[in-house]
Amino acid sequence: MSYLSNLRIILGFDEFSRDPPMWRGVCAEFLGTLFFVLIGSFSCLGGWIPGYEPTVVQTAFAFGITIATVIQCTSHVSGGHINPAITIAFLVGRQISVLRAILYIMAQCVGAIAGAAILAGLVPKELRGNLGLTKPSDYITTGQCFGVEVMSTFLLVWTTFSVTDEGRTDLKGSAPLAVGLSAVALGLGAGPISGGSLNPARSFGPAVITGDWDLHWIYWVGPIGGGILASLCYTFCFRAPKNHHCK
Amino acid sequence: MSYLSNLRIILGFDEFSRDPPMWRGVCAEFLGTLFFVLIGSFSCLGGWIPGYEPTVVQTAFAFGITIATVIQCTSHVSGGHINPAITIAFLVGRQISVLRAILYIMAQCVGAIAGAAILAGLVPKELRGNLGLTKPSDYITTGQCFGVEVMSTFLLVWTTFSVTDEGRTDLKGSAPLAVGLSAVALGLGAGPISGGSLNPARSFGPAVITGDWDLHWIYWVGPIGGGILASLCYTFCFRAPKNHHCK
Amino acid sequence: MSYLSNLRIILGFDEFSRDPPMWRGVCAEFLGTLFFVLIGSFSCLGGWIPGYEPTVVQTAFAFGITIATVIQCTSHVSGGHINPAITIAFLVGRQISVLRAILYIMAQCVGAIAGAAILAGLVPKELRGNLGLTKPSDYITTGQCFGVEVMSTFLLVWTTFSVTDEGRTDLKGSAPLAVGLSAVALGLGAGPISGGSLNPARSFGPAVITGDWDLHWIYWVGPIGGGILASLCYTFCFRAPKNHHCK
Amino acid sequence: MSYLSNLRIILGFDEFSRDPPMWRGVCAEFLGTLFFVLIGSFSCLGGWIPGYEPTVVQTAFAFGITIATVIQCTSHVSGGHINPAITIAFLVGRQISVLRAILYIMAQCVGAIAGAAILAGLVPKELRGNLGLTKPSDYITTGQCFGVEVMSTFLLVWTTFSVTDEGRTDLKGSAPLAVGLSAVALGLGAGPISGGSLNPARSFGPAVITGDWDLHWIYWVGPIGGGILASLCYTFCFRAPKNHHCK
Ligand SMILES: [Ca+2]
Ligand SMILES: [Ca+2]
Ligand SMILES: [Ca+2]
Ligand SMILES: [Ca+2]
Repeated sequence: MSYLSNLRIILGFDEFSRDPPMWRGVCAEFLGTLFFVLIGSFSCLGGWIPGYEPTVVQTAFAFGITIATVIQCTSHVSGGHINPAITIAFLVGRQISVLRAILYIMAQCVGAIAGAAILAGLVPKELRGNLGLTKPSDYITTGQCFGVEVMSTFLLVWTTFSVTDEGRTDLKGSAPLAVGLSAVALGLGAGPISGGSLNPARSFGPAVITGDWDLHWIYWVGPIGGGILASLCYTFCFRAPKNHHCK
Repeated sequence: MSYLSNLRIILGFDEFSRDPPMWRGVCAEFLGTLFFVLIGSFSCLGGWIPGYEPTVVQTAFAFGITIATVIQCTSHVSGGHINPAITIAFLVGRQISVLRAILYIMAQCVGAIAGAAILAGLVPKELRGNLGLTKPSDYITTGQCFGVEVMSTFLLVWTTFSVTDEGRTDLKGSAPLAVGLSAVALGLGAGPISGGSLNPARSFGPAVITGDWDLHWIYWVGPIGGGILASLCYTFCFRAPKNHHCK
Repeated sequence: MSYLSNLRIILGFDEFSRDPPMWRGVCAEFLGTLFFVLIGSFSCLGGWIPGYEPTVVQTAFAFGITIATVIQCTSHVSGGHINPAITIAFLVGRQISVLRAILYIMAQCVGAIAGAAILAGLVPKELRGNLGLTKPSDYITTGQCFGVEVMSTFLLVWTTFSVTDEGRTDLKGSAPLAVGLSAVALGLGAGPISGGSLNPARSFGPAVITGDWDLHWIYWVGPIGGGILASLCYTFCFRAPKNHHCK
Repeated sequence: MSYLSNLRIILGFDEFSRDPPMWRGVCAEFLGTLFFVLIGSFSCLGGWIPGYEPTVVQTAFAFGITIATVIQCTSHVSGGHINPAITIAFLVGRQISVLRAILYIMAQCVGAIAGAAILAGLVPKELRGNLGLTKPSDYITTGQCFGVEVMSTFLLVWTTFSVTDEGRTDLKGSAPLAVGLSAVALGLGAGPISGGSLNPARSFGPAVITGDWDLHWIYWVGPIGGGILASLCYTFCFRAPKNHHCK
């Protein structure tokens, strides 16, 4: 294969003729991220009855099970990323093209803004809080928050690569549920510390609507950094050899 | 095929000769909705020991896992709808006939009334509360409650269509559990806001027994509207092409 | 087949020559019920730190997930009943013999006593409470408690028959997990009302060790009655025809 | 086979030429245990907002679902033990070699120290608590704590052997999730009593970093003892005969 045709594949210029067509994948990423941000952030809001505050268990399961749900709803069309850190990890692992990655990340960001905007429309001003914006705990340093997001997203992406590894035949059970449950565990552990974002889009949508950009960079650099590390680690150390036998 | 025979199929006049027979499907929908309303509503009641009130986590998991359970118990006989919004979504998606839809919805409503009536018989008057009736939070407008139900049921129906799409071969794991878990996530997120009905029958049963019809229309128009939107969206945008290969 | 040989099969005199041998099934039922009662009852005890009381969510998941676990551990050897109500439901549904049912129920009861006795040995006297004994809430009548156990066990057995129905090919996912999750939902709903036993052995073990037999009969007649009803209902109305095609 | 060649297999001298290579398995055990200890221990810490303390439900699900996640991430490379008690149980059951067992246990211990050290780096000194160190409740004796760990790890290992038994064809669903959920149930039941370790490495890492070795031996002897008992019990009483039919 010539250098040029190889480059065409990496960049993705041939992808517009694929099936399912790329615009459907972009739609799926948009709608998936919209619902992920909307339903997850619902669970962060309090005050629906006097004194009511959501527990960590509630928000961790709300986000994690919503992730499992929207991945199931979109995986056959787009691959079910709904997360720029996962899209970039797949790009680094050479599983998607540059063009697809750019379009997906744009769709995820617009979807997250739409989700946060719908959230703002569906709840009264007094109960909106910060629309589920991710914030570090007051007690940790910026570096610690960054480290928590790096480590957490490493495990999320390691899980994603594990359950979508085409060479593995040892796993039964639902792959979307496995990814969603890893996010539940990470939310139970890291949620109270760093906000447990694991997903730049999930932090971006509420930031756009509330206008609060304080320390926002952590939720891009941390998850994307952790995701790239996990992608390299899985691809070079843990990936199963593809099995070419007929079933 | 002539226009008339096509109409016979859409309306469903031929369905009475199918196997399993339709009366079994109607029985399954009745009994499934009865248990769904009974067990779910049990979890909404408080006061069993002084000061005890159920948490959002408890009711969300009780409803959602009961949904997974009754779908599993009925799916081979009726398809496991137990929800008029899902039945109408399948009708709009041309997956069931008009006749079957009408009979199922009647069975679901009668089942929900029976479930709420049994509930009223099994708990003392002082602890009955409103029998798990769905109500908007005092802090939101009618339109906001309507919007929350539309969006929530959109995701429930999107999930249902995703995991029952015959063209998809990428999903392993339990389809009923996937639907039930989506309801868990929606209950964790939307439960405290709109009551998290997602299901007109689930709201109808307690309304009949308590006689409280205040804002009841929201729980018909919202879920059915959201379900129809999801049905159209999935059918025209996300449905996988049927795979005709032998297995 | 003659009347006599038919009777031999129903009674089970030929079963001792089967593989796996029946004594292994009896061992599995003993050990499974022992662990079910031990781990579940651990979760009912409070006071490990001052003021600590388990929540309904905690005990419901502890019992339900332990059920899923011990069924998985025993199903290939004994069928994984660990519950006299389920054993009798299978007997009524003509899926096991009289002899096997009697031996299993004896093993379950002895296992439950052993589990409760080990529990009593592993926790100090002051924290033993009533060893997780099931009791009706003070606010309901005996008849209401009975009704709650009948309805709850109906759903548990309906689920068990659904996921073990050999004629069904529509269900993916773990059958033991499905049964365990139905018990989670029932514990979240009925636990605070009737104690959520669903299982005579689970109530019998702690009753033997504590000597508290007050209203104990409810937890035999209720679950067994509900289980028999569900067995008849499933066998005559919902059972799938066996599929004789080779795969 | 001669006595000597048999001994070579048991000890594992031939394993270095296997595929996947053993160093990958050792890497997987190291990284899996690191993340297990890190994420699980995150969930044990409190104080992120004033008055916040994690609930038993939160820590039990955090540990258990993290176990499911890391097993999924490592099982194709190392078998996914991440627990010396499980490694020794497999050794006793003649499923792995002595050499592999020794290397895995070393990797698990170093991984657990690394996880606890990273934890100490990511949280401020005031909120570190004891880094999730396992401790018996003040109200139980040493013997009772030992007994709780023996019984709990017996069930964990019984589950592990059940879902990895190559002769069993009756189980669908995710094996790693089944093991993780058994740990959830055990955490819900035994967590408040003994600390619910089930895993010497999980107790060892925080002990090294905090320097608190008080009663540490319990968390080696208890889990390993319970695991060996379960291994013998499963291997001699419950193991399914291997099925040699082609699929
Ligand atoms: Ca995410
Ligand atoms: Ca519903
Ligand atoms: Ca039971
Ligand atoms: Ca462990």
